[in-house]
Amino acid sequence: MIPPQVESATYLGCGTESGLISIDQALALILEKIQLSGTETLELNAALNRYLAEDIFSAIQLPLFSQSAVDGYAINPTDSVEHHFEDVIQAHSQFTLIGEIRAGQSAELTLQAGQALRIFTGAEIPQGTTTVARQEIVQIINAESIEITEHLKIHADIRDAGEEITVGQLLAQAGQQLSVGAIASLSMAGVQQVQVYQYPKIAVVITGDEVAKSSADFEAGKIFDANAPLIQAWFQQQNQKVDIFHVADTAEAVNSLLADLNQKYDLILTTGGVSVGDYDFIRPVALDLGFQQIFWKVKQKPGKPMLFAEFIRTDGSVCYLLGLPGNPAAVYVGMHIYTQTVLNALQGHRHIPNGFKAALTHDLKADARERILRMSISFDQATLKVSSLSNQQSHMLSNLMHANALVRIPAGEKIHAGQSVDGFFI
Amino acid sequence: MIPPQVESATYLGCGTESGLISIDQALALILEKIQLSGTETLELNAALNRYLAEDIFSAIQLPLFSQSAVDGYAINPTDSVEHHFEDVIQAHSQFTLIGEIRAGQSAELTLQAGQALRIFTGAEIPQGTTTVARQEIVQIINAESIEITEHLKIHADIRDAGEEITVGQLLAQAGQQLSVGAIASLSMAGVQQVQVYQYPKIAVVITGDEVAKSSADFEAGKIFDANAPLIQAWFQQQNQKVDIFHVADTAEAVNSLLADLNQKYDLILTTGGVSVGDYDFIRPVALDLGFQQIFWKVKQKPGKPMLFAEFIRTDGSVCYLLGLPGNPAAVYVGMHIYTQTVLNALQGHRHIPNGFKAALTHDLKADARERILRMSISFDQATLKVSSLSNQQSHMLSNLMHANALVRIPAGEKIHAGQSVDGFFI
Repeated sequence: MIPPQVESATYLGCGTESGLISIDQALALILEKIQLSGTETLELNAALNRYLAEDIFSAIQLPLFSQSAVDGYAINPTDSVEHHFEDVIQAHSQFTLIGEIRAGQSAELTLQAGQALRIFTGAEIPQGTTTVARQEIVQIINAESIEITEHLKIHADIRDAGEEITVGQLLAQAGQQLSVGAIASLSMAGVQQVQVYQYPKIAVVITGDEVAKSSADFEAGKIFDANAPLIQAWFQQQNQKVDIFHVADTAEAVNSLLADLNQKYDLILTTGGVSVGDYDFIRPVALDLGFQQIFWKVKQKPGKPMLFAEFIRTDGSVCYLLGLPGNPAAVYVGMHIYTQTVLNALQGHRHIPNGFKAALTHDLKADARERILRMSISFDQATLKVSSLSNQQSHMLSNLMHANALVRIPAGEKIHAGQSVDGFFI
Repeated sequence: MIPPQVESATYLGCGTESGLISIDQALALILEKIQLSGTETLELNAALNRYLAEDIFSAIQLPLFSQSAVDGYAINPTDSVEHHFEDVIQAHSQFTLIGEIRAGQSAELTLQAGQALRIFTGAEIPQGTTTVARQEIVQIINAESIEITEHLKIHADIRDAGEEITVGQLLAQAGQQLSVGAIASLSMAGVQQVQVYQYPKIAVVITGDEVAKSSADFEAGKIFDANAPLIQAWFQQQNQKVDIFHVADTAEAVNSLLADLNQKYDLILTTGGVSVGDYDFIRPVALDLGFQQIFWKVKQKPGKPMLFAEFIRTDGSVCYLLGLPGNPAAVYVGMHIYTQTVLNALQGHRHIPNGFKAALTHDLKADARERILRMSISFDQATLKVSSLSNQQSHMLSNLMHANALVRIPAGEKIHAGQSVDGFFI
């Protein structure tokens, strides 16, 4: 782990801080303003990581039928055994072997008292079975007769029909995200299609004449683009694709692009061009096109000039615009905090995922703005600890090679080692 | 959260436990036996989640050139200012405005003492610049003259060339996984291609005549398949695809399939058919085909009859076989513990990811085998807590709707509330 950073000197280039809202206020505005996406029905195997738009109740019971938990013998002890020992079948009890049933076969016969049937894990137990004797405690006497070698509890190694899930039981709730485990669990209950919220159609707009679009485009004064690869990989991690556009820093180019995208996409993410510089055209152009500002500028570091706006189309549908600053660390943090919140809210899920609490391993001095710092986690027994990495400035990204958490440091107060802070895994 | 489970009665159907290896022994054998995959060169944007096969040193410095951190004015104070106030430029100092430089433009001129240049965030500062005055503290006197309205430190708001990364500096190490942040960070350093370990070509074989392949295939005595959807979603989560095969529970069918797959795939995952039942053909057929057993049966719950074997082809290349049990909970746990370890080891990364320590919220009674329990996490300040969910039996999956951790409970000892246990996030 890289040693905890010494915080850089008070930020000099912020301009006025008055009138800025907090991160929590910004997130609350997103949740308040976002309209739910429409819904669609998908095959379950195409719905990984999507959010359910319906409660799902089980159409079947699980297990579907009473079945053996092991490879062994379904047995029906004689009446005398049952009465004499109540819930135990005595060692050396013998049974007449009347056949075999394999997993996947239907059990059509009925075991009479004193009879046994060869059975395998998952196979349906026949009527009359009180117990399954696992094969390790069964001695085969001859082709028609077996003996158990140990005492055995009545009902051993039987999985009862419906012991896990009953017909009509709630399996999953609207708003729940379909994890790998959820997909598997619903599959086992025979669910094959699910109603989920539509995933928004997303355009990404990269501004900044200094950003080289490719190595061929590289020349003096330009920089390699981190933002497009970052955003593309971020969505790829979520199994989603987005359309990426580069735009020149002129009002005409930005206008022409946004006027097209706001008709075709549910969400436009922009990077850069959202502050107050002479060549920052995203906000004035968007407002000019009829976007309504929901918030602009958040009291945070990195990423102060965050913009969130909505464009209501003539049919009442909405195109949202999330204007991320141009510095790549602000983009990275903004994707995890704001884009994720917007995506969740569009899909009916109203909080930031993967939140944790952790103890800082070092002091941090006060800052007027809330900071979101890239940190490294460790465990001291069950205590989750976080340590700030070096190179936290908004134009620096190299510490993401080592960071596995983003941590929120409250504004305006010195934080002491050991103090509990909020964060999330990245 | 579902209340902590009361552990079910002592497991009755295990057979002998002698000779079984522990989970840690099994994982050590995987790491010992696995041969590294070959390497390939990929475009960086196609390499998300892959493991680097090379150290990467930076070909450039970052920042590439000294640049402005803000929108403002590059200035060169007169000699007298510099000498008199050492590191501070006094308020009301005036400068002659000689032009403008935008981000993405190359700075070709040199600032003389007393001169200023309009500049924007990320733009290269011209020779002679000692300081950038952010626009909020600059008053424009006329088209040729500006005045700063506050004292300003020499070197304010300049990002120095190379302050984050120097030419030749180690950016990333062989064995490191390429996260979203790593992709972004390498992009910014101009890295466009990376040498990574090949991802293995994987076949998945689903056994069990009781498993319905589709709803059309469903009939009495059968069950809905959870294992194929589970494994498919698990790989989809990793942005990978696998080929899935269903095979009948006959020695001939299993033989025919494995004899084909072991020539074409790097890794075969099987579910079911790996225990000692009369219809469990995976292991005897694999051994018959020339697979060498590395281990079989692990002292764990769920998933005791785990098989790991290798087939060495005539060209010396290896096909590995990981035989997972058929119960879906054993498959789920097996994917996270064994399949992930195999995939990591093939790609040069030799540990289970995302490990944590946490405090149990309740007692757990002793069990002869190590258990891997599905749990729900919570935080009490910085203490990570885990609570076992109900329905832990190996044929049950419904608690995966709520689980967000798998937790290892050591064999043979009672665990007390508050005790620290190992686990990982799911």
